[in-house]
Amino acid sequence: MNKRPKILITNDDGINAKGIRRLIEFVKDFADVVVFAPNKPQSGMGHAVTINNPIKFQLIQKDKFYAEYSCSGTPVDCIKLAFDTIYKRTHPDLCISGINHGSNSSVNLLYSGTMAAAIEAAMANVPAIGFSLLDFAEDANFDLAKEYIVKIIKNVLTNGLKERTCLNVNIPKGKIKGIKVVRQSKAYWVETFEERYDPYKRPYYWMLGEFINLDEGNDTDEHALKNAYISIVPIQLDLTCYESINMIKKWDLKT
Amino acid sequence: MNKRPKILITNDDGINAKGIRRLIEFVKDFADVVVFAPNKPQSGMGHAVTINNPIKFQLIQKDKFYAEYSCSGTPVDCIKLAFDTIYKRTHPDLCISGINHGSNSSVNLLYSGTMAAAIEAAMANVPAIGFSLLDFAEDANFDLAKEYIVKIIKNVLTNGLKERTCLNVNIPKGKIKGIKVVRQSKAYWVETFEERYDPYKRPYYWMLGEFINLDEGNDTDEHALKNAYISIVPIQLDLTCYESINMIKKWDLKT
Repeated sequence: MNKRPKILITNDDGINAKGIRRLIEFVKDFADVVVFAPNKPQSGMGHAVTINNPIKFQLIQKDKFYAEYSCSGTPVDCIKLAFDTIYKRTHPDLCISGINHGSNSSVNLLYSGTMAAAIEAAMANVPAIGFSLLDFAEDANFDLAKEYIVKIIKNVLTNGLKERTCLNVNIPKGKIKGIKVVRQSKAYWVETFEERYDPYKRPYYWMLGEFINLDEGNDTDEHALKNAYISIVPIQLDLTCYESINMIKKWDLKT
Repeated sequence: MNKRPKILITNDDGINAKGIRRLIEFVKDFADVVVFAPNKPQSGMGHAVTINNPIKFQLIQKDKFYAEYSCSGTPVDCIKLAFDTIYKRTHPDLCISGINHGSNSSVNLLYSGTMAAAIEAAMANVPAIGFSLLDFAEDANFDLAKEYIVKIIKNVLTNGLKERTCLNVNIPKGKIKGIKVVRQSKAYWVETFEERYDPYKRPYYWMLGEFINLDEGNDTDEHALKNAYISIVPIQLDLTCYESINMIKKWDLKT
Protein backbone atom coordinates (compact mmCIF):
# COMPACT_ATOMS: atom_id res chain seq x y z
CA MET A 1 0.00 0.00 0.00
CA ASN A 2 1.36 3.43 -0.93
CA LYS A 3 2.07 5.78 1.94
CA ARG A 4 -0.83 7.94 0.80
CA PRO A 5 -2.73 6.04 -1.85
CA LYS A 6 -4.60 7.95 -4.56
CA ILE A 7 -8.33 7.23 -4.33
CA LEU A 8 -11.05 8.37 -6.75
CA ILE A 9 -14.55 8.55 -5.25
CA THR A 10 -17.86 8.70 -7.08
CA ASN A 11 -21.46 7.57 -6.59
CA ASP A 12 -24.87 7.64 -8.24
CA ASP A 13 -26.92 9.43 -5.59
CA GLY A 14 -25.16 12.70 -6.37
CA ILE A 15 -22.30 14.58 -4.77
CA ASN A 16 -24.39 15.91 -1.87
CA ALA A 17 -25.78 12.55 -0.76
CA LYS A 18 -25.00 11.52 2.78
CA GLY A 19 -23.49 8.21 1.63
CA ILE A 20 -20.67 9.77 -0.41
CA ARG A 21 -20.02 12.44 2.24
CA ARG A 22 -19.44 9.72 4.86
CA LEU A 23 -17.28 7.66 2.48
CA ILE A 24 -15.07 10.71 1.86
CA GLU A 25 -14.65 11.19 5.62
CA PHE A 26 -13.73 7.51 6.08
CA VAL A 27 -10.69 7.70 3.77
CA LYS A 28 -9.62 11.36 3.76
CA ASP A 29 -7.11 10.99 6.58
CA PHE A 30 -5.03 8.26 4.93
CA ALA A 31 -5.47 8.91 1.18
CA ASP A 32 -5.14 11.58 -1.48
CA VAL A 33 -8.73 11.88 -2.58
CA VAL A 34 -10.36 13.10 -5.79
CA VAL A 35 -14.14 13.21 -5.63
CA PHE A 36 -15.72 13.32 -9.10
CA ALA A 37 -19.43 12.74 -8.77
CA PRO A 38 -22.75 13.56 -10.45
CA ASN A 39 -24.30 16.93 -9.60
CA LYS A 40 -27.73 15.28 -9.25
CA PRO A 41 -29.13 11.86 -8.37
CA GLN A 42 -28.46 9.26 -11.07
CA SER A 43 -29.94 6.15 -9.46
CA GLY A 44 -30.93 3.35 -11.78
CA MET A 45 -28.75 4.75 -14.57
CA GLY A 46 -26.96 1.43 -15.03
CA HIS A 47 -23.94 1.69 -17.29
CA ALA A 48 -25.32 4.72 -19.17
CA VAL A 49 -22.87 7.08 -20.87
CA THR A 50 -23.42 10.53 -22.36
CA ILE A 51 -22.56 10.35 -26.03
CA ASN A 52 -25.10 12.61 -27.72
CA ASN A 53 -24.56 15.63 -25.46
CA PRO A 54 -21.57 17.43 -24.04
CA ILE A 55 -20.72 17.08 -20.35
CA LYS A 56 -19.83 19.82 -17.88
CA PHE A 57 -17.99 19.68 -14.59
CA GLN A 58 -16.66 22.16 -12.07
CA LEU A 59 -14.16 22.26 -9.26
CA ILE A 60 -15.96 22.64 -5.93
CA GLN A 61 -13.02 22.66 -3.53
CA LYS A 62 -9.36 21.77 -3.45
CA ASP A 63 -6.49 21.56 -0.99
CA LYS A 64 -3.20 19.64 -0.87
CA PHE A 65 -4.66 16.15 -0.42
CA TYR A 66 -8.20 16.68 -1.64
CA ALA A 67 -10.12 17.86 -4.70
CA GLU A 68 -13.83 17.73 -5.37
CA TYR A 69 -15.59 18.04 -8.74
CA SER A 70 -19.29 18.09 -9.55
CA CYS A 71 -20.30 16.74 -12.95
CA SER A 72 -23.39 16.85 -15.19
CA GLY A 73 -22.80 13.28 -16.43
CA THR A 74 -23.62 9.76 -15.30
CA PRO A 75 -21.46 7.80 -12.82
CA VAL A 76 -19.68 6.08 -15.74
CA ASP A 77 -19.04 9.47 -17.37
CA CYS A 78 -17.50 10.62 -14.07
CA ILE A 79 -14.98 7.77 -14.09
CA LYS A 80 -14.04 8.35 -17.72
CA LEU A 81 -13.71 12.12 -17.24
CA ALA A 82 -11.70 11.84 -14.04
CA PHE A 83 -9.28 9.34 -15.63
CA ASP A 84 -8.75 11.55 -18.67
CA THR A 85 -8.92 15.12 -17.37
CA ILE A 86 -7.88 14.90 -13.68
CA TYR A 87 -5.48 11.95 -13.51
CA LYS A 88 -4.44 12.39 -17.15
CA ARG A 89 -4.18 8.60 -17.54
CA THR A 90 -1.85 8.11 -14.54
CA HIS A 91 -4.44 5.95 -12.83
CA PRO A 92 -5.39 6.24 -9.16
CA ASP A 93 -4.60 3.27 -6.88
CA LEU A 94 -8.25 2.62 -6.20
CA CYS A 95 -11.70 3.75 -7.20
CA ILE A 96 -14.56 3.59 -4.68
CA SER A 97 -18.21 4.23 -5.44
CA GLY A 98 -21.00 4.88 -2.97
CA ILE A 99 -21.98 4.54 -0.29
CA ASN A 100 -25.20 3.86 -2.16
CA HIS A 101 -28.52 4.53 -0.42
CA GLY A 102 -30.14 1.13 -0.96
CA SER A 103 -29.09 -2.39 -1.96
CA ASN A 104 -27.04 -3.36 -5.00
CA SER A 105 -26.94 -7.03 -4.11
CA SER A 106 -27.73 -9.83 -6.56
CA VAL A 107 -29.04 -8.67 -9.97
CA ASN A 108 -29.57 -5.16 -8.61
CA LEU A 109 -25.98 -4.57 -9.60
CA LEU A 110 -27.07 -4.58 -13.26
CA TYR A 111 -29.27 -1.49 -12.75
CA SER A 112 -26.86 0.29 -10.46
CA GLY A 113 -24.96 3.43 -11.39
CA THR A 114 -22.82 2.89 -8.30
CA MET A 115 -21.66 -0.51 -9.51
CA ALA A 116 -21.39 0.64 -13.14
CA ALA A 117 -18.80 3.19 -11.99
CA ALA A 118 -16.83 0.43 -10.25
CA ILE A 119 -17.10 -1.81 -13.32
CA GLU A 120 -15.95 1.05 -15.55
CA ALA A 121 -12.84 1.54 -13.39
CA ALA A 122 -12.17 -2.23 -13.49
CA MET A 123 -12.30 -2.07 -17.28
CA ALA A 124 -9.27 0.25 -17.15
CA ASN A 125 -7.74 -2.24 -14.71
CA VAL A 126 -8.04 0.12 -11.73
CA PRO A 127 -9.07 -1.83 -8.59
CA ALA A 128 -12.56 -0.73 -7.63
CA ILE A 129 -15.20 -1.26 -4.96
CA GLY A 130 -18.87 -0.33 -4.89
CA PHE A 131 -20.38 0.10 -1.41
CA SER A 132 -24.13 0.03 -0.73
CA LEU A 133 -26.15 0.21 2.47
CA LEU A 134 -29.52 -1.54 2.70
CA ASP A 135 -31.25 1.54 4.04
CA PHE A 136 -33.11 4.20 2.04
CA ALA A 137 -33.96 6.31 5.10
CA GLU A 138 -32.94 9.97 5.19
CA ASP A 139 -31.19 9.39 8.51
CA ALA A 140 -29.55 6.08 7.51
CA ASN A 141 -26.54 5.33 9.71
CA PHE A 142 -23.47 4.76 7.52
CA ASP A 143 -21.05 4.92 10.46
CA LEU A 144 -21.80 1.44 11.84
CA ALA A 145 -19.94 0.09 8.80
CA LYS A 146 -16.97 2.47 8.96
CA GLU A 147 -14.42 0.01 10.37
CA TYR A 148 -15.45 -2.69 7.88
CA ILE A 149 -15.34 -0.33 4.92
CA VAL A 150 -11.86 0.91 5.83
CA LYS A 151 -10.72 -2.68 6.37
CA ILE A 152 -11.95 -3.74 2.92
CA ILE A 153 -10.36 -0.69 1.27
CA LYS A 154 -7.00 -1.30 2.95
CA ASN A 155 -7.11 -4.97 1.96
CA VAL A 156 -7.68 -4.09 -1.68
CA LEU A 157 -4.88 -1.51 -1.56
CA THR A 158 -2.51 -4.10 -0.05
CA ASN A 159 -3.57 -7.28 -1.87
CA GLY A 160 -4.92 -5.91 -5.14
CA LEU A 161 -7.68 -7.59 -7.11
CA LYS A 162 -7.61 -10.05 -9.97
CA GLU A 163 -7.17 -8.20 -13.27
CA ARG A 164 -10.34 -6.50 -14.52
CA THR A 165 -12.52 -7.35 -11.53
CA CYS A 166 -14.12 -5.22 -8.83
CA LEU A 167 -15.98 -5.82 -5.58
CA ASN A 168 -19.69 -5.44 -4.94
CA VAL A 169 -19.98 -4.76 -1.19
CA ASN A 170 -23.41 -4.58 0.43
CA ILE A 171 -23.96 -3.64 4.04
CA PRO A 172 -26.94 -4.76 6.12
CA LYS A 173 -28.97 -2.23 8.05
CA GLY A 174 -28.26 -2.13 11.78
CA LYS A 175 -25.77 -4.22 13.75
CA ILE A 176 -23.14 -6.00 11.63
CA LYS A 177 -21.89 -9.48 12.54
CA GLY A 178 -18.93 -9.60 10.14
CA ILE A 179 -18.07 -10.09 6.46
CA LYS A 180 -18.84 -12.96 4.06
CA VAL A 181 -17.21 -13.42 0.65
CA VAL A 182 -20.02 -14.85 -1.46
CA ARG A 183 -21.53 -15.23 -4.92
CA GLN A 184 -24.29 -13.21 -6.60
CA SER A 185 -27.69 -14.59 -5.64
CA LYS A 186 -30.03 -15.73 -8.42
CA ALA A 187 -32.98 -13.38 -8.29
CA TYR A 188 -35.14 -11.07 -10.37
CA TRP A 189 -37.65 -8.25 -10.15
CA VAL A 190 -41.32 -8.50 -11.03
CA GLU A 191 -42.65 -5.09 -11.92
CA THR A 192 -46.16 -3.83 -11.79
CA PHE A 193 -47.02 -0.46 -13.27
CA GLU A 194 -49.43 1.82 -11.51
CA GLU A 195 -51.63 3.57 -14.06
CA ARG A 196 -52.62 7.18 -13.43
CA TYR A 197 -54.20 9.83 -15.64
CA ASP A 198 -52.96 13.33 -16.29
CA PRO A 199 -55.42 16.30 -16.33
CA TYR A 200 -55.89 15.70 -20.08
CA LYS A 201 -56.97 12.12 -19.38
CA ARG A 202 -53.79 10.63 -20.83
CA PRO A 203 -52.43 7.60 -18.93
CA TYR A 204 -48.98 7.46 -17.41
CA TYR A 205 -47.26 4.73 -15.43
CA TRP A 206 -45.15 4.50 -12.28
CA MET A 207 -42.86 1.52 -11.98
CA LEU A 208 -43.27 -0.57 -8.84
CA GLY A 209 -41.29 -3.73 -8.33
CA GLU A 210 -40.99 -6.73 -6.12
CA PHE A 211 -37.61 -8.39 -5.65
CA ILE A 212 -37.77 -12.18 -5.80
CA ASN A 213 -34.83 -14.25 -4.60
CA LEU A 214 -34.84 -17.67 -6.31
CA ASP A 215 -31.66 -18.82 -4.63
CA GLU A 216 -31.67 -20.95 -1.50
CA GLY A 217 -27.87 -21.27 -1.30
CA ASN A 218 -26.15 -20.22 1.92
CA ASP A 219 -23.17 -18.91 -0.05
CA THR A 220 -24.98 -15.93 -1.63
CA ASP A 221 -25.03 -12.19 -0.98
CA GLU A 222 -28.74 -12.32 -0.12
CA HIS A 223 -28.10 -15.01 2.49
CA ALA A 224 -25.22 -13.09 4.07
CA LEU A 225 -27.19 -9.85 4.24
CA LYS A 226 -30.26 -11.56 5.69
CA ASN A 227 -28.02 -12.85 8.48
CA ALA A 228 -26.55 -9.41 9.26
CA TYR A 229 -23.24 -9.95 7.45
CA ILE A 230 -21.64 -7.60 4.94
CA SER A 231 -21.48 -9.36 1.55
CA ILE A 232 -18.49 -9.11 -0.78
CA VAL A 233 -19.05 -10.43 -4.30
CA PRO A 234 -16.09 -10.25 -6.71
CA ILE A 235 -17.43 -9.12 -10.09
CA GLN A 236 -15.97 -9.83 -13.52
CA LEU A 237 -16.45 -8.09 -16.86
CA ASP A 238 -16.68 -11.25 -18.93
CA LEU A 239 -20.37 -12.16 -19.23
CA THR A 240 -19.80 -15.12 -21.57
CA CYS A 241 -21.76 -18.19 -20.54
CA TYR A 242 -19.05 -20.72 -21.39
CA GLU A 243 -21.32 -23.68 -20.66
CA SER A 244 -23.60 -22.62 -23.51
CA ILE A 245 -20.95 -22.31 -26.21
CA ASN A 246 -20.68 -26.02 -27.05
CA MET A 247 -24.45 -26.47 -26.89
CA ILE A 248 -25.03 -23.67 -29.41
CA LYS A 249 -22.22 -24.93 -31.66
CA LYS A 250 -24.37 -28.03 -32.25
CA TRP A 251 -27.22 -25.99 -33.74
CA ASP A 252 -27.79 -26.01 -37.47
CA LEU A 253 -26.66 -22.49 -38.30
CA LYS A 254 -25.87 -23.01 -41.96
CA THR A 255 -27.92 -20.92 -44.37
CA MET B 1 -41.45 -24.08 -32.02
CA ASN B 2 -45.02 -22.79 -31.75
CA LYS B 3 -46.97 -22.57 -34.99
CA ARG B 4 -46.90 -18.78 -34.67
CA PRO B 5 -44.49 -17.90 -31.86
CA LYS B 6 -45.03 -14.74 -29.84
CA ILE B 7 -42.11 -12.37 -30.29
CA LEU B 8 -41.49 -9.07 -28.46
CA ILE B 9 -39.27 -6.62 -30.33
CA THR B 10 -37.46 -3.59 -28.93
CA ASN B 11 -34.25 -1.62 -29.53
CA ASP B 12 -32.31 1.39 -28.30
CA ASP B 13 -32.10 3.47 -31.47
CA GLY B 14 -35.80 4.29 -31.24
CA ILE B 15 -38.90 2.89 -32.90
CA ASN B 16 -38.29 4.65 -36.20
CA ALA B 17 -34.73 3.43 -36.69
CA LYS B 18 -34.06 1.46 -39.85
CA GLY B 19 -32.61 -1.46 -37.84
CA ILE B 20 -35.80 -2.23 -35.91
CA ARG B 21 -37.99 -1.69 -38.99
CA ARG B 22 -35.98 -4.34 -40.88
CA LEU B 23 -36.03 -6.73 -37.90
CA ILE B 24 -39.83 -6.44 -37.75
CA GLU B 25 -40.08 -7.29 -41.45
CA PHE B 26 -37.80 -10.32 -41.02
CA VAL B 27 -40.13 -12.04 -38.51
CA LYS B 28 -43.60 -10.63 -39.19
CA ASP B 29 -44.62 -13.38 -41.58
CA PHE B 30 -44.02 -16.27 -39.17
CA ALA B 31 -44.62 -14.73 -35.71
CA ASP B 32 -47.15 -12.80 -33.65
CA VAL B 33 -45.23 -9.63 -33.03
CA VAL B 34 -45.45 -6.96 -30.36
CA VAL B 35 -43.12 -4.01 -30.92
CA PHE B 36 -42.57 -1.99 -27.74
CA ALA B 37 -39.72 0.43 -28.32
CA PRO B 38 -38.42 3.83 -27.21
CA ASN B 39 -39.93 6.86 -28.92
CA LYS B 40 -36.46 8.41 -29.26
CA PRO B 41 -32.84 7.23 -29.51
CA GLN B 42 -31.56 5.72 -26.25
CA SER B 43 -28.09 4.63 -27.30
CA GLY B 44 -25.55 4.19 -24.52
CA MET B 45 -28.28 3.98 -21.92
CA GLY B 46 -26.95 0.69 -20.56
CA HIS B 47 -29.29 -0.98 -18.11
CA ALA B 48 -30.93 2.32 -17.08
CA VAL B 49 -34.47 2.24 -15.68
CA THR B 50 -36.90 5.10 -15.05
CA ILE B 51 -37.69 5.11 -11.36
CA ASN B 52 -37.98 8.79 -10.48
CA ASN B 53 -40.40 9.73 -13.25
CA PRO B 54 -43.53 8.23 -14.73
CA ILE B 55 -43.43 6.56 -18.14
CA LYS B 56 -45.84 7.00 -21.03
CA PHE B 57 -46.56 4.79 -24.01
CA GLN B 58 -49.04 4.73 -26.87
CA LEU B 59 -50.42 2.26 -29.36
CA ILE B 60 -49.21 3.15 -32.86
CA GLN B 61 -50.86 0.39 -34.89
CA LYS B 62 -52.49 -2.96 -34.41
CA ASP B 63 -53.89 -5.84 -36.44
CA LYS B 64 -54.48 -9.53 -35.81
CA PHE B 65 -50.84 -10.62 -35.63
CA TYR B 66 -49.14 -7.31 -34.93
CA ALA B 67 -49.14 -4.48 -32.41
CA GLU B 68 -46.74 -1.57 -32.12
CA TYR B 69 -46.22 0.70 -29.10
CA SER B 70 -44.00 3.74 -28.71
CA CYS B 71 -42.68 4.42 -25.20
CA SER B 72 -41.03 7.34 -23.39
CA GLY B 73 -38.80 5.01 -21.34
CA THR B 74 -35.47 3.24 -21.76
CA PRO B 75 -35.07 -0.13 -23.53
CA VAL B 76 -35.20 -1.91 -20.14
CA ASP B 77 -38.37 0.02 -19.23
CA CYS B 78 -39.88 -1.17 -22.52
CA ILE B 79 -39.30 -4.83 -21.62
CA LYS B 80 -40.73 -4.42 -18.12
CA LEU B 81 -43.77 -2.49 -19.37
CA ALA B 82 -44.50 -4.90 -22.21
CA PHE B 83 -44.29 -7.91 -19.88
CA ASP B 84 -46.63 -6.32 -17.36
CA THR B 85 -49.12 -4.30 -19.41
CA ILE B 86 -49.23 -6.03 -22.84
CA TYR B 87 -48.47 -9.68 -22.11
CA LYS B 88 -49.87 -9.43 -18.57
CA ARG B 89 -47.18 -11.85 -17.34
CA THR B 90 -47.95 -14.58 -19.92
CA HIS B 91 -44.49 -14.27 -21.36
CA PRO B 92 -43.70 -14.18 -25.09
CA ASP B 93 -41.70 -17.07 -26.57
CA LEU B 94 -38.82 -14.82 -27.47
CA CYS B 95 -37.59 -11.28 -27.11
CA ILE B 96 -35.39 -9.74 -29.81
CA SER B 97 -33.65 -6.40 -29.58
CA GLY B 98 -32.10 -4.37 -32.40
CA ILE B 99 -30.94 -4.43 -35.03
CA ASN B 100 -28.58 -1.97 -33.40
CA HIS B 101 -26.84 0.59 -35.57
CA GLY B 102 -23.24 -0.10 -34.47
CA SER B 103 -21.31 -2.81 -32.65
CA ASN B 104 -22.18 -4.31 -29.27
CA SER B 105 -19.36 -6.81 -29.32
CA SER B 106 -16.96 -7.38 -26.41
CA VAL B 107 -17.38 -4.94 -23.49
CA ASN B 108 -19.59 -2.69 -25.63
CA LEU B 109 -22.42 -4.88 -24.43
CA LEU B 110 -22.10 -3.24 -20.99
CA TYR B 111 -23.02 0.20 -22.38
CA SER B 112 -25.66 -1.06 -24.73
CA GLY B 113 -29.37 -0.42 -24.32
CA THR B 114 -29.99 -3.06 -26.99
CA MET B 115 -28.24 -5.73 -24.95
CA ALA B 116 -29.68 -4.45 -21.65
CA ALA B 117 -33.15 -5.14 -23.05
CA ALA B 118 -32.12 -8.71 -23.94
CA ILE B 119 -30.55 -9.19 -20.50
CA GLU B 120 -33.70 -7.85 -18.84
CA ALA B 121 -35.81 -10.40 -20.72
CA ALA B 122 -33.38 -13.18 -19.73
CA MET B 123 -33.82 -12.15 -16.10
CA ALA B 124 -37.49 -13.09 -16.43
CA ASN B 125 -36.32 -16.31 -18.10
CA VAL B 126 -37.61 -15.28 -21.53
CA PRO B 127 -35.13 -16.37 -24.25
CA ALA B 128 -33.67 -13.22 -25.79
CA ILE B 129 -31.32 -12.12 -28.54
CA GLY B 130 -29.68 -8.77 -29.18
CA PHE B 131 -28.69 -8.10 -32.80
CA SER B 132 -26.19 -5.42 -33.83
CA LEU B 133 -24.71 -4.46 -37.20
CA LEU B 134 -21.20 -2.99 -37.38
CA ASP B 135 -22.33 -0.09 -39.55
CA PHE B 136 -23.39 3.36 -38.36
CA ALA B 137 -24.15 4.65 -41.87
CA GLU B 138 -27.58 6.06 -42.64
CA ASP B 139 -27.90 3.66 -45.57
CA ALA B 140 -26.52 0.61 -43.70
CA ASN B 141 -27.62 -2.63 -45.38
CA PHE B 142 -29.36 -4.85 -42.83
CA ASP B 143 -30.72 -7.23 -45.46
CA LEU B 144 -27.45 -9.06 -46.12
CA ALA B 145 -27.92 -10.66 -42.66
CA LYS B 146 -31.59 -11.52 -43.03
CA GLU B 147 -31.18 -15.27 -43.62
CA TYR B 148 -28.73 -15.58 -40.72
CA ILE B 149 -30.91 -13.58 -38.35
CA VAL B 150 -33.97 -15.68 -39.15
CA LYS B 151 -31.89 -18.87 -38.77
CA ILE B 152 -30.66 -17.82 -35.33
CA ILE B 153 -34.17 -16.81 -34.21
CA LYS B 154 -35.66 -20.14 -35.38
CA ASN B 155 -32.90 -22.07 -33.62
CA VAL B 156 -33.59 -20.29 -30.34
CA LEU B 157 -37.33 -20.91 -30.72
CA THR B 158 -36.69 -24.61 -31.39
CA ASN B 159 -33.78 -25.34 -29.03
CA GLY B 160 -34.30 -22.77 -26.29
CA LEU B 161 -31.48 -21.23 -24.32
CA LYS B 162 -29.93 -22.17 -20.99
CA GLU B 163 -31.96 -20.67 -18.15
CA ARG B 164 -31.38 -16.95 -17.64
CA THR B 165 -29.04 -16.44 -20.57
CA CYS B 166 -29.36 -14.51 -23.81
CA LEU B 167 -27.38 -14.15 -27.03
CA ASN B 168 -25.26 -11.22 -28.12
CA VAL B 169 -25.21 -11.39 -31.93
CA ASN B 170 -23.00 -9.02 -33.89
CA ILE B 171 -22.99 -8.81 -37.66
CA PRO B 172 -20.03 -7.66 -39.74
CA LYS B 173 -20.46 -4.99 -42.39
CA GLY B 174 -20.62 -6.28 -45.95
CA LYS B 175 -20.37 -9.87 -47.14
CA ILE B 176 -20.92 -12.50 -44.42
CA LYS B 177 -18.95 -15.78 -44.43
CA GLY B 178 -21.00 -17.58 -41.77
CA ILE B 179 -21.55 -17.75 -38.00
CA LYS B 180 -19.11 -18.37 -35.13
CA VAL B 181 -20.15 -19.16 -31.55
CA VAL B 182 -17.49 -17.42 -29.50
CA ARG B 183 -16.61 -15.75 -26.19
CA GLN B 184 -16.58 -12.05 -25.29
CA SER B 185 -13.27 -10.48 -26.26
CA LYS B 186 -11.20 -8.78 -23.55
CA ALA B 187 -11.12 -5.12 -24.49
CA TYR B 188 -11.72 -1.63 -23.21
CA TRP B 189 -12.26 1.96 -24.28
CA VAL B 190 -9.82 4.79 -23.74
CA GLU B 191 -11.67 8.07 -23.78
CA THR B 192 -10.37 11.50 -24.54
CA PHE B 193 -12.56 14.52 -23.92
CA GLU B 194 -12.59 17.37 -26.38
CA GLU B 195 -12.80 20.66 -24.51
CA ARG B 196 -14.88 23.47 -25.99
CA TYR B 197 -16.12 26.77 -24.59
CA ASP B 198 -19.66 28.11 -24.59
CA PRO B 199 -20.35 31.78 -25.43
CA TYR B 200 -20.00 32.59 -21.71
CA LYS B 201 -16.49 31.09 -21.70
CA ARG B 202 -17.54 28.05 -19.67
CA PRO B 203 -15.90 24.78 -20.74
CA TYR B 204 -17.82 21.72 -21.82
CA TYR B 205 -16.61 18.33 -22.99
CA TRP B 206 -17.44 15.89 -25.78
CA MET B 207 -16.58 12.27 -25.18
CA LEU B 208 -14.40 10.63 -27.81
CA GLY B 209 -13.22 7.09 -27.40
CA GLU B 210 -10.88 4.55 -28.87
CA PHE B 211 -11.72 0.86 -28.62
CA ILE B 212 -8.73 -1.28 -27.66
CA ASN B 213 -8.87 -5.05 -28.09
CA LEU B 214 -6.44 -6.74 -25.69
CA ASP B 215 -7.39 -10.25 -26.73
CA GLU B 216 -5.42 -12.22 -29.31
CA GLY B 217 -7.59 -15.35 -29.04
CA ASN B 218 -9.14 -16.72 -32.22
CA ASP B 219 -12.25 -17.78 -30.30
CA THR B 220 -13.55 -14.25 -29.59
CA ASP B 221 -16.29 -12.07 -31.04
CA GLU B 222 -13.76 -9.50 -32.23
CA HIS B 223 -11.83 -12.19 -34.11
CA ALA B 224 -14.96 -13.58 -35.75
CA LEU B 225 -16.17 -10.14 -36.83
CA LYS B 226 -12.77 -9.14 -38.19
CA ASN B 227 -12.90 -12.24 -40.38
CA ALA B 228 -16.38 -11.46 -41.75
CA TYR B 229 -18.27 -13.93 -39.52
CA ILE B 230 -21.34 -13.17 -37.44
CA SER B 231 -20.45 -13.62 -33.74
CA ILE B 232 -22.79 -15.25 -31.24
CA VAL B 233 -21.78 -14.86 -27.58
CA PRO B 234 -24.06 -16.51 -24.99
CA ILE B 235 -24.42 -14.05 -22.08
CA GLN B 236 -25.16 -14.87 -18.45
CA LEU B 237 -26.52 -12.73 -15.62
CA ASP B 238 -24.18 -14.02 -12.95
CA LEU B 239 -21.18 -11.68 -12.84
CA THR B 240 -19.51 -13.41 -9.88
CA CYS B 241 -15.80 -13.99 -10.42
CA TYR B 242 -15.68 -17.41 -8.76
CA GLU B 243 -11.90 -17.63 -9.07
CA SER B 244 -11.54 -14.62 -6.76
CA ILE B 245 -13.74 -15.87 -3.92
CA ASN B 246 -11.17 -18.13 -2.29
CA MET B 247 -8.42 -15.57 -2.72
CA ILE B 248 -10.44 -12.88 -0.94
CA LYS B 249 -11.50 -15.31 1.79
CA LYS B 250 -7.81 -15.42 2.81
CA TRP B 251 -7.72 -11.68 3.52
CA ASP B 252 -7.72 -10.44 7.09
CA LEU B 253 -11.24 -8.99 7.23
CA LYS B 254 -11.73 -9.10 11.00
CA THR B 255 -12.27 -5.76 12.69
